[in-house]
Amino acid sequence: MSGRSEGTQWTQRTQRAELHSKKNDSKFLFIYFKILIVETATNGLKGANGSNGTAHRNGTNGHISTTQRRNPYAPRASDFLNNVSNFKIIESTLREGEQFANAFFDTETKIAIAKALDKFGVEYIELTSPAASEQSRRDCEAICKLGLNAKILTHIRCHMDDARIAIETGVDGVDVVIGTSSFLREFSHGKDMTYITKTAIEVINFVKSKGIEVRFSTEDSFRSDLVDLLSIYQTVDKIGVNRVGIADTVGCANPRQVYELVRTLRGVVGCDIEIHLHNDTGMAIANAYTALEAGATHIDTSVLGIGERVGITPLGGLVLYNLGMLREIENLVAEAVEVNVPFSNPITLSGYVAFTHKAGIHAKAILNNPSTYEILKPEDFGLTRYVSIGHRLTGWNAVKSRVEQLGLQLTDDEIKDATAKIKELADVRTQSMDDVDSLLRVYHSGIQSGALEVGQKEALDRLLQEHRAAQLASA
Amino acid sequence: MSGRSEGTQWTQRTQRAELHSKKNDSKFLFIYFKILIVETATNGLKGANGSNGTAHRNGTNGHISTTQRRNPYAPRASDFLNNVSNFKIIESTLREGEQFANAFFDTETKIAIAKALDKFGVEYIELTSPAASEQSRRDCEAICKLGLNAKILTHIRCHMDDARIAIETGVDGVDVVIGTSSFLREFSHGKDMTYITKTAIEVINFVKSKGIEVRFSTEDSFRSDLVDLLSIYQTVDKIGVNRVGIADTVGCANPRQVYELVRTLRGVVGCDIEIHLHNDTGMAIANAYTALEAGATHIDTSVLGIGERVGITPLGGLVLYNLGMLREIENLVAEAVEVNVPFSNPITLSGYVAFTHKAGIHAKAILNNPSTYEILKPEDFGLTRYVSIGHRLTGWNAVKSRVEQLGLQLTDDEIKDATAKIKELADVRTQSMDDVDSLLRVYHSGIQSGALEVGQKEALDRLLQEHRAAQLASA
Repeated sequence: MSGRSEGTQWTQRTQRAELHSKKNDSKFLFIYFKILIVETATNGLKGANGSNGTAHRNGTNGHISTTQRRNPYAPRASDFLNNVSNFKIIESTLREGEQFANAFFDTETKIAIAKALDKFGVEYIELTSPAASEQSRRDCEAICKLGLNAKILTHIRCHMDDARIAIETGVDGVDVVIGTSSFLREFSHGKDMTYITKTAIEVINFVKSKGIEVRFSTEDSFRSDLVDLLSIYQTVDKIGVNRVGIADTVGCANPRQVYELVRTLRGVVGCDIEIHLHNDTGMAIANAYTALEAGATHIDTSVLGIGERVGITPLGGLVLYNLGMLREIENLVAEAVEVNVPFSNPITLSGYVAFTHKAGIHAKAILNNPSTYEILKPEDFGLTRYVSIGHRLTGWNAVKSRVEQLGLQLTDDEIKDATAKIKELADVRTQSMDDVDSLLRVYHSGIQSGALEVGQKEALDRLLQEHRAAQLASA
Repeated sequence: MSGRSEGTQWTQRTQRAELHSKKNDSKFLFIYFKILIVETATNGLKGANGSNGTAHRNGTNGHISTTQRRNPYAPRASDFLNNVSNFKIIESTLREGEQFANAFFDTETKIAIAKALDKFGVEYIELTSPAASEQSRRDCEAICKLGLNAKILTHIRCHMDDARIAIETGVDGVDVVIGTSSFLREFSHGKDMTYITKTAIEVINFVKSKGIEVRFSTEDSFRSDLVDLLSIYQTVDKIGVNRVGIADTVGCANPRQVYELVRTLRGVVGCDIEIHLHNDTGMAIANAYTALEAGATHIDTSVLGIGERVGITPLGGLVLYNLGMLREIENLVAEAVEVNVPFSNPITLSGYVAFTHKAGIHAKAILNNPSTYEILKPEDFGLTRYVSIGHRLTGWNAVKSRVEQLGLQLTDDEIKDATAKIKELADVRTQSMDDVDSLLRVYHSGIQSGALEVGQKEALDRLLQEHRAAQLASA
């Protein structure tokens, strides 16, 4: 929606990324959610008035769509600064991520990660400062020479020495940061502003004179004096910086604070706004989301969120395209830094928990209509949905679905009776799918042969014992 | 701040919880952050005007405190609905958590978890419906008989049958939920409202007649019709329900949506407001935070966030007291459901990453003043801070600190020279603390003996080779 849209460029990238399904044409997760919300609201309506299920203008007032009326929390037309559907990723696994406790990336690993991120489709790849070490400088040069589609950035302190070294590596842009948070926190109302301004202007003009992008960022922005903060951003905006950066360096910000600071800044500068969010309180994804709502244009991420301390906004927390490849990148990085992908990792997830449904009432609804309890599609992740039924929370509707899958003929009363037995057994020990299948087959053959009727608990126990004895004998 | 405060009860609980330090008297993480922000702002001011570092009234206008002026994003006095500092936890590891893919809690494990949560100090413990299975019913009874301080709740469908079974277990309260999300999504503007209202009133009046607490919740509240939603909540509020619950059952909500729905509901009902947030997009902690800002009074949590799919708001994402014990509970549950505590787990964290500092500019500042980059204190978690220096991002200030710890006498120039060698070696392989210590000792003895001067690279290499040869010979 913003005037900063580069839709064509993005379209090319998404095409290159070989999307898994048409649904994934929506670039981002959040957009996907909105579509689902729209679909849901409209489907709800469908039953009432028979409309065709797509959003449409309301005939009565001519300008408020049905969808807007049905979902009062959807973005308003007046939210023209909202960039949730239109932002760029500055992927910092090779800079912020290298500051993670376990990270040591050799040249080969760095190149593998850079290539994977580029193929995945991120707009920018940020690298450790070439001033950090000789190998860091050589790696920066090597990655610049790969000829990737992603722009290559390096992250330096606001010093002319660092800027000169950075320029020589061949990067497409330089991310400049005021080196210590104490600066902005300790100078108050003008003190030291002259020095900061002078240095910033010198570095920015130098980088711009080389014809590449330059970003200017403060550190610990949320604990800085607001007036000083806005003053320095306004100054660098006036001399033509490409982006200003806000950093929640210590991870203390909350979503509404982020929204307010970004929205305030949006009114002060004309350039792009980048945000860098640490995850110390577990709010880095949500903070990125509200930053976009407020008008931020660029979000810093790293794979699995790795970085200083507990890290930053994870790449997988913001995107919903090319998901199979996202899983590959996460595995690549997890292996390089020797961590397990968390069981609760948003979006790609570790293993199968995201699509396992367990409670009886959930399982029933999910079998009727997966969107009842899922906002993502397992098949987009190369995963399958799993409705768990061998446990005490199971319900007869989920069991019925399995009975049908097995091709068994049982009445609802018989299925309810078999379900009671599954719950009884699962009270002692979780039943595997094999256990459940065996029980259902024994129940079915008992009914067929006339050896069993609904409610005959002892008969069922005897049949199950015979079945187990036969299994043991043949084993 | 809200009129719902039960400060005395809470104070007793925190005392019982044997807090680790005075700082932890602040009940919750967020409060802790605010205190830190205040301290920081005030400390910043201290240098300028010599005040004593505590917030104070501004002499000029007599009613705006210095702190408020310094931190424009701090809560306003007018935010009287903000419950960030005043809420109750409904701990649902033994209900929502039991719906986690890997969860099978036997009676012994359930009792161990319930006792640990009670000792930890949660206000409510929610259990699986006794209607789910015979063992679930027996476990519910057993936990009710433990005589815990926490109130015991069970979570049931909105049916009289379930309500009757629940009452007989001896619980302190019943959490009633409209059983399928399709209900509220499909009835629009009055359709089915009669049926829901009738059932809800019957169940609520029945539970109330037994003298225990009752909560009424919808499912999938954020995809429900807003008018129907508010209508049903207003109805149950009028007949005296203790709490209404909002549930983001599919995990599709974002922080500002949550804020707006809770704030709207706060104007419609007089009873308490509970919120249940799934974590499918990684925003469950942030959503809980904004719900509290908007006036929610009760938050559902589970240990490590376990639950259906990727789970809900984790207990550790909301609290900052009794942290050693929180780690124990997390380990207990992680073991029971066979998952690893994620490396990036907020608050207690897995291992040491949260307090490891790596970048040169970070390490320098953290050595001067830990609050520069830490909003939590490692000692509160039974952990120690670790400034990593054996890598290529290291800086000489961090190395200097280690030199001083080792009691070595080196000038700044000598330390910078040694640091260059550490960075050179770390470009090839991360150096352990032992490696770094050896290098510093060799450097120091070289300087002392006159065998080495600043900048003599070959001499240093020779000394290091001799040291390694001597080590190998003695090994």
